[in-house]
Amino acid sequence: MNKKQTLQLRKQYIGPSLSLSYQEPLKIVRGFMQYLYDEKGKKYLDARNNVPHIGHCHPKVNKTAHQQMCVLNTNTRYLHDNLVLYAQRLCDKMPEPLKVCYIVNSGSEANDLALRLAWTYTKEKDVIVVDHAYHGNLSSLIHISPYKFDGKGGTGAPPYVHKVPIPDGYRGKFKYRNSQAGQKYASQIKDVLRGLKNNGKGLAAFISESIMGCAGQIVFPENYLMHAYQYVRETGGICIADEVQVGFGRMGSHFWGFETQNVVPDIVSLGKPIGNGFPLAAVVTRPEIAHSFDNGMEYFNTFGGNPVSCAVGLAVLDVIEEEGLMENARTTGAYLKDKLEQLQNKYPVIGDVRGKGLFLGIELVSDQRKLTPAAKLTAQIVEKMKEEGILIGADGPFQNVLKIKPPLVFNKDNADLFVSKLEKILEDLTNSVD
Amino acid sequence: MNKKQTLQLRKQYIGPSLSLSYQEPLKIVRGFMQYLYDEKGKKYLDARNNVPHIGHCHPKVNKTAHQQMCVLNTNTRYLHDNLVLYAQRLCDKMPEPLKVCYIVNSGSEANDLALRLAWTYTKEKDVIVVDHAYHGNLSSLIHISPYKFDGKGGTGAPPYVHKVPIPDGYRGKFKYRNSQAGQKYASQIKDVLRGLKNNGKGLAAFISESIMGCAGQIVFPENYLMHAYQYVRETGGICIADEVQVGFGRMGSHFWGFETQNVVPDIVSLGKPIGNGFPLAAVVTRPEIAHSFDNGMEYFNTFGGNPVSCAVGLAVLDVIEEEGLMENARTTGAYLKDKLEQLQNKYPVIGDVRGKGLFLGIELVSDQRKLTPAAKLTAQIVEKMKEEGILIGADGPFQNVLKIKPPLVFNKDNADLFVSKLEKILEDLTNSVD
Repeated sequence: MNKKQTLQLRKQYIGPSLSLSYQEPLKIVRGFMQYLYDEKGKKYLDARNNVPHIGHCHPKVNKTAHQQMCVLNTNTRYLHDNLVLYAQRLCDKMPEPLKVCYIVNSGSEANDLALRLAWTYTKEKDVIVVDHAYHGNLSSLIHISPYKFDGKGGTGAPPYVHKVPIPDGYRGKFKYRNSQAGQKYASQIKDVLRGLKNNGKGLAAFISESIMGCAGQIVFPENYLMHAYQYVRETGGICIADEVQVGFGRMGSHFWGFETQNVVPDIVSLGKPIGNGFPLAAVVTRPEIAHSFDNGMEYFNTFGGNPVSCAVGLAVLDVIEEEGLMENARTTGAYLKDKLEQLQNKYPVIGDVRGKGLFLGIELVSDQRKLTPAAKLTAQIVEKMKEEGILIGADGPFQNVLKIKPPLVFNKDNADLFVSKLEKILEDLTNSVD
Repeated sequence: MNKKQTLQLRKQYIGPSLSLSYQEPLKIVRGFMQYLYDEKGKKYLDARNNVPHIGHCHPKVNKTAHQQMCVLNTNTRYLHDNLVLYAQRLCDKMPEPLKVCYIVNSGSEANDLALRLAWTYTKEKDVIVVDHAYHGNLSSLIHISPYKFDGKGGTGAPPYVHKVPIPDGYRGKFKYRNSQAGQKYASQIKDVLRGLKNNGKGLAAFISESIMGCAGQIVFPENYLMHAYQYVRETGGICIADEVQVGFGRMGSHFWGFETQNVVPDIVSLGKPIGNGFPLAAVVTRPEIAHSFDNGMEYFNTFGGNPVSCAVGLAVLDVIEEEGLMENARTTGAYLKDKLEQLQNKYPVIGDVRGKGLFLGIELVSDQRKLTPAAKLTAQIVEKMKEEGILIGADGPFQNVLKIKPPLVFNKDNADLFVSKLEKILEDLTNSVD
């Protein structure tokens, strides 16, 4: 089929609330490592997709999946080594006391289960979320995702969900230069907790991404989660780290995002990169919480934890280690960030360069003091980069943050190409604006 | 690892609310077609698992999945032929006006999306469910699953969820012999609707499996869904058919369960057999409902609808057609049911034999008039059948229904073996009871 036919069938048969990337959509027919190829053979550097974590179509994952599919794929009502070895391996990657696992099929299923665990364990319902957070596409997760419930088609926060401001050192109330910013943002959680107490309510959970994605690649100020977790735990609430976007070594310095904040959550939810695109996700928690959930109601997940999913999960962990991908995220991420900061010195439209490892954000503003979001320019850059053969996304409350989160095989040559193309486009677009 | 070690690691690392089948759990290491093999090479006829629909480890599915995994696996923000061809193929299997598709990762994700569609379209919240129904493991689905919310660890129905009795011609208020049973059971829905109206409330949806699984393989009396749908639609509610257990030709006579009731739902949710074990599921609905859901809020599913999932889905549909599996469900199902009915004549403990195609139930009672559930005997039979190399499950509100739902490659020899083993066990157990 040609592109037009594919597009026509998509319009006819696929729910219209799923939009395509780019003004002129891409038809992608091949992928390998950090590259995608369209139907005409044009090559794109993929700097926007954190799901193919170890590289598109990694041979080791494909071989492992195929071998296991040819031997057995059944549910978890029988014993199988893959399930227990994978759970053990995931738990080994976690600090104490995070040593009990549930294997599911998507980050959304993981976050919903995390909520169920929190609700059951605390016997409370209320949840604190960070503004503009996104935690998944299920009904329960739309309810705790300001990105959705405050966005188009949304109907606001349900009564049991309480927002706290984004702890954003660039655009928020407390700036990077404020060494107490982490504690000050966390004290906004304390205010919510006080309000709950005054209304005779307890707290089930505080849920937060470890670095925020849809909110615009927000790195929390030092000690934010430490203080936040302390306040939450003082009221009997539990702390959920949503690692769906940033886990598995992407941070470079640490395997998990929460480790960069020096905290240990009560529940961690995992997704996207965990299976390199295979539908796989997981929840890891403390034994105490897992046991409270074992109240007589079974938690059975038809596909979750099957031998194929677990084989894939094991292969992904193998490859991250064998190929030194976390170290590459650290070095290539630092190299790229440094080059972007150099660009920032030349182009005042770059208001902020932030992020960790290979999870970076570039915030674009038309006025450096007023922080006026340059949303139109951001969208133009995304389109121009595509023309130049580089795929990046844009997000944030004002759609003015370029998001960089490539497969972890992204290398220094890719970084050089990325920066040189971005500079050329900035040169063209910001000159034409003047 | 030996079985003991696997079990020990499972106890250590896997959430304890996931139980194993059988008193002495099985360690299954291989599967092919309708057979599973344990770590000692013992062969089991799998008569309990409706997920490996076209047979465990079907070569065509494995080959297709592997080929696509080696070429491309990415998300639905780009055009890809597999997504649109699969959506078209699924819609072609559906009656008008069910012609818009959403591809997701599990039956639970499908049912949650079905609810979101219903809530958005009707702008109402209330849902009518059939007693003892199970619709999935997500928080929103526990809320509409009496099997869960009335079971151990459950906290009852939320205020917006309303139960109607199981339309059970064997054990319910209106019996098989009552030619008006369908309408009479449906009128219990009318009663709920009247109650809602009196409270100034509308209805979002009536959701029902087309043949009930966890409720004990309940075949609805003729015209039940026809009248139910009529009453529901008169109030502006929509009708959701949960085909997760019974779709894709298992009924033998029809490709979908709802077709056996001669109705067209507004939303159909699909899961389990759809990918032969690959995490895949779908929702199909009317364009009008899909458009109402397109209210500005994106529905994006990270893994859902990727080229690999869709390739698998297409291969499963191919095999069902190429191998005549629906026809086999019809003929082998009828053959097996006939033999079970002959057994019923010999063993008064068999109170009822029911079901369609290869989705059958055997209800065991210790008193044919009082319908006293023979739960202990049922559990014993499940264990003894396992010893004899046959895997079946038990379910129903009283845990006294043997459930037969094998891969559709189940043949007449398998049926003969099944019945002869069951007869031997019934002979032994019911004699020893006397």
